[in-house]
Amino acid sequence: MRKLQITVIGDSAEIPLNNQIAYDTGRLIAGMGHVLINGGREGVMTASSKGAEEAGGLTVSILPEEDVNAGHAFGQIKIATGLGYTRNSVNVLSADIVVAIGGMSGTLCEIAYAWAFNKPIIAFTTADGWGAKLAGTSIDKRRSDVIIPVSSIEELEREIQALAEKIRRV
Amino acid sequence: MRKLQITVIGDSAEIPLNNQIAYDTGRLIAGMGHVLINGGREGVMTASSKGAEEAGGLTVSILPEEDVNAGHAFGQIKIATGLGYTRNSVNVLSADIVVAIGGMSGTLCEIAYAWAFNKPIIAFTTADGWGAKLAGTSIDKRRSDVIIPVSSIEELEREIQALAEKIRRV
Amino acid sequence: MRKLQITVIGDSAEIPLNNQIAYDTGRLIAGMGHVLINGGREGVMTASSKGAEEAGGLTVSILPEEDVNAGHAFGQIKIATGLGYTRNSVNVLSADIVVAIGGMSGTLCEIAYAWAFNKPIIAFTTADGWGAKLAGTSIDKRRSDVIIPVSSIEELEREIQALAEKIRRV
Amino acid sequence: MRKLQITVIGDSAEIPLNNQIAYDTGRLIAGMGHVLINGGREGVMTASSKGAEEAGGLTVSILPEEDVNAGHAFGQIKIATGLGYTRNSVNVLSADIVVAIGGMSGTLCEIAYAWAFNKPIIAFTTADGWGAKLAGTSIDKRRSDVIIPVSSIEELEREIQALAEKIRRV
Repeated sequence: MRKLQITVIGDSAEIPLNNQIAYDTGRLIAGMGHVLINGGREGVMTASSKGAEEAGGLTVSILPEEDVNAGHAFGQIKIATGLGYTRNSVNVLSADIVVAIGGMSGTLCEIAYAWAFNKPIIAFTTADGWGAKLAGTSIDKRRSDVIIPVSSIEELEREIQALAEKIRRV
Repeated sequence: MRKLQITVIGDSAEIPLNNQIAYDTGRLIAGMGHVLINGGREGVMTASSKGAEEAGGLTVSILPEEDVNAGHAFGQIKIATGLGYTRNSVNVLSADIVVAIGGMSGTLCEIAYAWAFNKPIIAFTTADGWGAKLAGTSIDKRRSDVIIPVSSIEELEREIQALAEKIRRV
Repeated sequence: MRKLQITVIGDSAEIPLNNQIAYDTGRLIAGMGHVLINGGREGVMTASSKGAEEAGGLTVSILPEEDVNAGHAFGQIKIATGLGYTRNSVNVLSADIVVAIGGMSGTLCEIAYAWAFNKPIIAFTTADGWGAKLAGTSIDKRRSDVIIPVSSIEELEREIQALAEKIRRV
Repeated sequence: MRKLQITVIGDSAEIPLNNQIAYDTGRLIAGMGHVLINGGREGVMTASSKGAEEAGGLTVSILPEEDVNAGHAFGQIKIATGLGYTRNSVNVLSADIVVAIGGMSGTLCEIAYAWAFNKPIIAFTTADGWGAKLAGTSIDKRRSDVIIPVSSIEELEREIQALAEKIRRV
């Protein structure tokens, strides 16, 4: 049986606060025994994969590039899509849970996809960007839940734990 | 030489106000001699294509489905992508200008893509949804412009005219 | 009601014989009142679009690039997919009929997709490449028909005419 | 550093001979310490993943579906693309080496993509289908090599070993 897959989305720009949260999130996901997925680029993507790898976890990069050797050096698996940013939908579809850490237009696009594809979304209120802006809100009326706001790794762990139990009961 | 291509995005739900704006927008785009592109589904997509067709314009539907006969009945060209909502990026990449009329998560996703792909975006402040919510704002700091707010078809015409002149000068 | 859409596939390399057949095929498709679709690149794609445009037809380029201004200069509509060669499937899904003129690995890929997506395929026996190699054969046992071989524009016209009548009866 | 990724392509139909070869191929790839990738469906895909899982290897399914729980039950990682058969290109782009076992139109499409994307291709001459038909041949003149023919798991092991050494030297 496959493990739970958690996709981390956020800035490709290098923002020290967001990278630190991403690193800790990667460590947490690996420590909980889940698979980490991200888009394979800089910033939050590299930092979360580094965290997961150092904690002995399994990580997957879903690259915009055609080149399977593109992207950051962390993680066991690389998926070379050749789709450019059109691959945003694949990042999100492959997730059981999506975690947003800050983020610009690319992250906003992925949050919108995650909502449309009915994925549970957790967002850090403490990382500057679209994740924080939308935490606690609904994207539209088709879902009755909200983007779950968290402000610490401890809270993130509790929310992942709760969602994981719900997903496994289905 | 190809004509200017304008992609209209917005609700697939049937919202009378938004559909009316979409119909008028379709008529305007056709009347100005531009090509109308949309996602080929219900609501704003059907209404704008109907308007353009009645005004004798050329319209293209970029369908999520594999079936080239799917989608609404208006328009001369159907592109069957088979990509599901992953086709959102194609709608936007194929545009010289993007016009947002209301919209839920799918429209939010397309606005985010349009911003990331550096497309000029015009949004109706009078149509309920993400278009109106983001009109006049910036998605992130990578661009110095804003989503251009308009509140009438006359304003839309002026903004399209101004953008068209700018695009043709390049 | 939309017109019939015919996708022309074949070499992006410049092969004079194949380009001549493509040019004549483009003229034929436009003259019959159908829409020509191709991949927007060099060789057979440019030549068929040139033929269709000179005959006053409607032509669509489905580009691998993100840039809506990429590709050849002929035709009214450009679809910028940003998918790279992954867009091969879109070329074929958007067709009512596929016409193969020569071709290397990209054309082989599109013939295989056309077969899998149950599209009628016509191939020139006179143009060097995968089209000729597979003309008159079946790709696999899931379909009972063959790739229809033609050796002249007159034969192509008869086959398109016969397929068009069959498609419109459905 | 990531492991070598080997994509196995072939029939989704259940052909006992091809499934047996696929199962043995999966065991071999896992035993050599490489990652197995396939399309996540029936036949050769299920059989190769089963073999790899039983040998303790890491396997990835790249699904056509939007549903991350679709596809066969073997393997640790599922990538839900939502792209339908358009995902064929992703299967191949993510590979360091492609191994073909029989196959119908979908496999032919993937072989053509693998050739276009410059991937080394190995094909079993003993499994009925497009793999065997093209083993030992060139798809077009853009590459000077051939699809490497093998007729046993021992030969496959030698060819993978030789290619792996070449890839790692780059």
